[in-house]
Amino acid sequence: MFRWRGSLWKAVLKDLIAFYIAYYIILFAQWYLLEEQQKAYFTGWIIWCEIGSQYIPLSFLLGFFVAVVVARWWEQFNYISWPDKMMMILSVCLPGEQHLNTRITIARWSSLMSAIAWSGISERTLKRFPTHRHLVQSKLMTEEEYDIFSNTEGPHGKWFVPIFWITNLVKEQHKKGFIDSVKLDMIMKHIFSFRDGFAMLYVYDWIKIPLVYTQVVAIATYGYFVICLLGRQPKIDEKSMQKEITIMFPIFTTFQMLFYVGWLKVGQFLMNPFGTDDDDFELNYIIDRNTYVANMMAGELADQLPTTVNGELDV
Amino acid sequence: MFRWRGSLWKAVLKDLIAFYIAYYIILFAQWYLLEEQQKAYFTGWIIWCEIGSQYIPLSFLLGFFVAVVVARWWEQFNYISWPDKMMMILSVCLPGEQHLNTRITIARWSSLMSAIAWSGISERTLKRFPTHRHLVQSKLMTEEEYDIFSNTEGPHGKWFVPIFWITNLVKEQHKKGFIDSVKLDMIMKHIFSFRDGFAMLYVYDWIKIPLVYTQVVAIATYGYFVICLLGRQPKIDEKSMQKEITIMFPIFTTFQMLFYVGWLKVGQFLMNPFGTDDDDFELNYIIDRNTYVANMMAGELADQLPTTVNGELDV
Amino acid sequence: MFRWRGSLWKAVLKDLIAFYIAYYIILFAQWYLLEEQQKAYFTGWIIWCEIGSQYIPLSFLLGFFVAVVVARWWEQFNYISWPDKMMMILSVCLPGEQHLNTRITIARWSSLMSAIAWSGISERTLKRFPTHRHLVQSKLMTEEEYDIFSNTEGPHGKWFVPIFWITNLVKEQHKKGFIDSVKLDMIMKHIFSFRDGFAMLYVYDWIKIPLVYTQVVAIATYGYFVICLLGRQPKIDEKSMQKEITIMFPIFTTFQMLFYVGWLKVGQFLMNPFGTDDDDFELNYIIDRNTYVANMMAGELADQLPTTVNGELDV
Amino acid sequence: MFRWRGSLWKAVLKDLIAFYIAYYIILFAQWYLLEEQQKAYFTGWIIWCEIGSQYIPLSFLLGFFVAVVVARWWEQFNYISWPDKMMMILSVCLPGEQHLNTRITIARWSSLMSAIAWSGISERTLKRFPTHRHLVQSKLMTEEEYDIFSNTEGPHGKWFVPIFWITNLVKEQHKKGFIDSVKLDMIMKHIFSFRDGFAMLYVYDWIKIPLVYTQVVAIATYGYFVICLLGRQPKIDEKSMQKEITIMFPIFTTFQMLFYVGWLKVGQFLMNPFGTDDDDFELNYIIDRNTYVANMMAGELADQLPTTVNGELDV
Amino acid sequence: MFRWRGSLWKAVLKDLIAFYIAYYIILFAQWYLLEEQQKAYFTGWIIWCEIGSQYIPLSFLLGFFVAVVVARWWEQFNYISWPDKMMMILSVCLPGEQHLNTRITIARWSSLMSAIAWSGISERTLKRFPTHRHLVQSKLMTEEEYDIFSNTEGPHGKWFVPIFWITNLVKEQHKKGFIDSVKLDMIMKHIFSFRDGFAMLYVYDWIKIPLVYTQVVAIATYGYFVICLLGRQPKIDEKSMQKEITIMFPIFTTFQMLFYVGWLKVGQFLMNPFGTDDDDFELNYIIDRNTYVANMMAGELADQLPTTVNGELDV
Repeated sequence: MFRWRGSLWKAVLKDLIAFYIAYYIILFAQWYLLEEQQKAYFTGWIIWCEIGSQYIPLSFLLGFFVAVVVARWWEQFNYISWPDKMMMILSVCLPGEQHLNTRITIARWSSLMSAIAWSGISERTLKRFPTHRHLVQSKLMTEEEYDIFSNTEGPHGKWFVPIFWITNLVKEQHKKGFIDSVKLDMIMKHIFSFRDGFAMLYVYDWIKIPLVYTQVVAIATYGYFVICLLGRQPKIDEKSMQKEITIMFPIFTTFQMLFYVGWLKVGQFLMNPFGTDDDDFELNYIIDRNTYVANMMAGELADQLPTTVNGELDV
Repeated sequence: MFRWRGSLWKAVLKDLIAFYIAYYIILFAQWYLLEEQQKAYFTGWIIWCEIGSQYIPLSFLLGFFVAVVVARWWEQFNYISWPDKMMMILSVCLPGEQHLNTRITIARWSSLMSAIAWSGISERTLKRFPTHRHLVQSKLMTEEEYDIFSNTEGPHGKWFVPIFWITNLVKEQHKKGFIDSVKLDMIMKHIFSFRDGFAMLYVYDWIKIPLVYTQVVAIATYGYFVICLLGRQPKIDEKSMQKEITIMFPIFTTFQMLFYVGWLKVGQFLMNPFGTDDDDFELNYIIDRNTYVANMMAGELADQLPTTVNGELDV
Repeated sequence: MFRWRGSLWKAVLKDLIAFYIAYYIILFAQWYLLEEQQKAYFTGWIIWCEIGSQYIPLSFLLGFFVAVVVARWWEQFNYISWPDKMMMILSVCLPGEQHLNTRITIARWSSLMSAIAWSGISERTLKRFPTHRHLVQSKLMTEEEYDIFSNTEGPHGKWFVPIFWITNLVKEQHKKGFIDSVKLDMIMKHIFSFRDGFAMLYVYDWIKIPLVYTQVVAIATYGYFVICLLGRQPKIDEKSMQKEITIMFPIFTTFQMLFYVGWLKVGQFLMNPFGTDDDDFELNYIIDRNTYVANMMAGELADQLPTTVNGELDV
Repeated sequence: MFRWRGSLWKAVLKDLIAFYIAYYIILFAQWYLLEEQQKAYFTGWIIWCEIGSQYIPLSFLLGFFVAVVVARWWEQFNYISWPDKMMMILSVCLPGEQHLNTRITIARWSSLMSAIAWSGISERTLKRFPTHRHLVQSKLMTEEEYDIFSNTEGPHGKWFVPIFWITNLVKEQHKKGFIDSVKLDMIMKHIFSFRDGFAMLYVYDWIKIPLVYTQVVAIATYGYFVICLLGRQPKIDEKSMQKEITIMFPIFTTFQMLFYVGWLKVGQFLMNPFGTDDDDFELNYIIDRNTYVANMMAGELADQLPTTVNGELDV
Repeated sequence: MFRWRGSLWKAVLKDLIAFYIAYYIILFAQWYLLEEQQKAYFTGWIIWCEIGSQYIPLSFLLGFFVAVVVARWWEQFNYISWPDKMMMILSVCLPGEQHLNTRITIARWSSLMSAIAWSGISERTLKRFPTHRHLVQSKLMTEEEYDIFSNTEGPHGKWFVPIFWITNLVKEQHKKGFIDSVKLDMIMKHIFSFRDGFAMLYVYDWIKIPLVYTQVVAIATYGYFVICLLGRQPKIDEKSMQKEITIMFPIFTTFQMLFYVGWLKVGQFLMNPFGTDDDDFELNYIIDRNTYVANMMAGELADQLPTTVNGELDV
């Protein structure tokens, strides 16, 4: 509740300060610059803005908008590709020392693939691997692979090249007779579902929520608070001060700002989940995790089996 | 935020101008043509319209309607067919120089298929390929294929003809013994999921959101602003002018128009995602991309494999 | 917008006329039959109904209800069975002149199946094939099949009989060794997904949206306008006429009727998508289309293949 | 609309009567027991309750709640298991007289399975088969099976036992060489999807909508009408009676009750779809239907094939 | 309705008591400490808060938020892994006494897997198995397995190790020729769907609903009742007491608290379904159930088959 990182307070702070500054400038102007009659006239404006602010159905707009955004955000997370099942099926179909090299190469290529594909989507990953040379430096790519990859022309993207290498390496094993058609099918399915994640993230990156929708929501929210700059001013002409109490701090507006702007920020943060915000998905960590786990599954775990079971039928 | 293309400003501009013109015509008429007593009477009309405008639950109607439309829009995008996986599975099951011709022919037919099918859905694609001769000119179709296609009668559509050619070519390879039943199954699944996208887009094109629903929303929105033409007029009879301040510009109505009409436009644009609006899906670009990528996958990438792996077991 | 067929205007017209008649009867009664004091008393009733009408959250009820209905409507459309993929897989697994008869028989049975099954769901289809004799007349069924079908007892429905014929004919080919188990599996999957559509439509036909829900929405909507019959009457006692302007036409209520009743009609039309309304799915057309296309796929297209590809490796 | 069974009228009647009784008791008390000054004081209470009733956002609570319930209700229906596809696949893989006994035994066990599993979920089915002896009496189970089943200990449920019998019987056929691995896979998939329905219904039965949510909605709804008992009383002190008309029947509250309580009842009925309400799913009928149809598919239909097709290639 | 455990009353009690205490402190202060003029001034504050409380669209915020949470909660439950189908498929592919040991070992490992994986998610499971030694003590793990598991390094988690043991044991059987590739595929699919549940629960545990969203809702709800502390005070200056009745108990606020805070609690409980609340999923019970059932399926049920069927064709 009182955490700072990724909290409401952090999200809303700047807007709130800007609001206060503008609010008190207007308040002081009203107080010191206007004469009594002008104050009364100004009160008319305040009332007029008070009524006007009710014309804006903020909660609906935000409710429907954030519902769409949250759904997309979660879908995107679920399209992050994990190599786990691909590595498991490899350990089943291409087991033993004999195929260790194949498995480890595919493990490396799966990380290479992630690094290349996610660089096109995520600012953070791009910062980590700004050029393809960085892939070679971080040992995800050999020099030879770098040459092949660089020589492949791809005006419409070429992030899918490593998946072809994986595929072709598996195909090689099939040609050599290590796996039959059924196993080839099993492996291909998992390679494809690994690939699909990247393709879908590109789709989400390409086709965003229509700009008009985003603008409608942002304009309604900020417009509301601009109207409140006037509409929530204390009425300081004499007649009004007799009728109602005069409070110099816009407490309810502050409160509304907390949740309306906060709600809007939820939407805006989640719209771009691969950016650099606090709540964004940390793809770089996932690359590290996947590199480690894929290697672990390719090597140590691939044939790990407690020995007791070797002696069968001992029940 | 301040982009013009596909922005809120562009979407709402025409309606806003029309509103202003009508609004000021009425305002001037009120001001110059009416006498004091008539003005007072007219104020009655204004109040009446002010109350009447509250009877219209615009935000709900728009919220529910746009939710349905946005869902459909995104579903439609996801039914756009990409040949990538079909080409990959072909490179796995029909590898090598030996089958290069088969793969390249299928790549071409996949683009032919897209061009034919999407011409029936998208205005832009139809503009690009107004007749089947244009397909021949753009090298998607040979003369012979043109003859065969033209001679096939299809009163209920024949966009699925190229998929039969692909299928039959694969079948040929199966008959020749290049692929077994399991591989045939693998290929067919991907051919089918390529095909399904086209079929589903025809379905979405045929069965639209019911006209009544669309009308209900449009009439409610525009009706609301027609009522506002009167209801948001300044009250310029003497009694009213003493009581409230008189503002000659419908600032809140402008504001409401921005997001209500903007919201409606979101719905109307997305209802027809294959049209010629700024935010519509650019199928023509996708055809180009797919043609390039499918050829790349059929040729260069089909058997690309970095050499280090050839020497197995070198760990 | 101004189309008549399937439009809002057509949907709402009858209710609107009924409303006007009742409204003006009450208005005239008020005007001519009541004395001044009674008029004042009647004004009390009008105010009371005006307030009462605000207790009804119509937009919510309709919003949530129509959301459910639209979802069901679209799901139902997607359960309409198309024989396309079944015919394609048959052309792959049972190709050539040799199996032409099998394919054509299955094509016919797929239409027979649709005709029988949809007669149980759709009024229009039932009108077209009121008895099973009509199936024989329209050549969907042979005399022998008619006998077999008639002799099969099915107190719990027997629409699934033709699917057994299709299945058993395929099984026959398997027994004769034309297709292996893998191909049998491929074919069976598509036969099943063809079948599932019919089964699901029976489910939707059997289990409707609970009656209570439908009634709640209808009563709320019509009740609202019954209350408006009084609540939106002009107040014609003297005191009121001095205070407010008196308008003899219920313009806002008309307007509300347009979209509230229109919205309700959207729900009511879509609840029963296989009826005879303008927007209902035209299953009869689909039967014709499917008969044509299935035959086309069984015959002409089954082995159509442009010749250039025959000379392989010509790149 | 005017049906009684499963209608709104039936659902709301009891609550409505209870409301009227309480309402008129209070009204008479107010009328006869209170003196003028007390009446005026009581009017204060009425106004206070009138305002208080507006604090309750019933339509939202009900809208969101019923949306969740309707979704669950429909999902549950779709998890009702039908043996149709399992029987069809058996007729394909284990055809002919030779396997008739196997098919018929499996048909019987599928009904046995339903009877056992649904007894744990549905009151009606439990009433029909209160003990396992009743299964023997209704010929779903043999004496031997009864012994085996009774001797199987299952502190955590044993509804899945018959599915093992089906599985093991199929396995037997596989061991005898009647079906190969591919067919075994085909059959197992359908056995599993038959099984999954039962498992999922147990899940829905175990994990209900959280009690708190249900209580929140029920308390809000009934609380609202308790407040209305006072808040919608006519104000019968002299001053009020001069100001407004006095109506002795709570017409709008009746109307609100119709749809608010009706809406709540929709939710409450659908929450427990296997109970004994009018709209609940009739699992007993489904068992009868399934028993009949499964036998029909195991026997008569399994190899039914119109003869014309025997003479192949006669086109 | 009147149950305590997991009920609304329990959920709301603490907040309600805190509210009453604060409310009556303010009320007494107002009553005894303020003079008449101050009371009148205080009434101004009350009115101001009364109005302010209407600015908060609680029902929307809660409605949309709880809809998201309920969906996630149910999804999470459905990702709980059950070993049933994995054990069934094992009994089909690896039947008989011969493979009993394999099946029982896999049954044990499936429980081991659950215990290890869920310890990382659920507080209750962690309490039961605080260290891996506890797994050995509860016989889910042998000493040898403990050593192997402890020696496997997994800085990024190693809950998936037992799934590798299962996989590798199955692989062993395949190598020995007990199962062919098709059966291997069947088994692997079910092992994977068993595994997926754990992986998904880790995902849900890692990526929660964004903190900002949760804070927005909590702050809005509690803020609302803080404002009500003033805004729902009785107005006890003389003028107000003449005008309205004065009630010393915040009955409507209590009522609102019941369902607003109750609704919020629904959200907060369901956000963390593997905690220790009354409505949380009891994973420990599920482990026990699964251990029992998996053993039952591995042993007693694996080949159970009523004998009547042995004599085939006896119909």
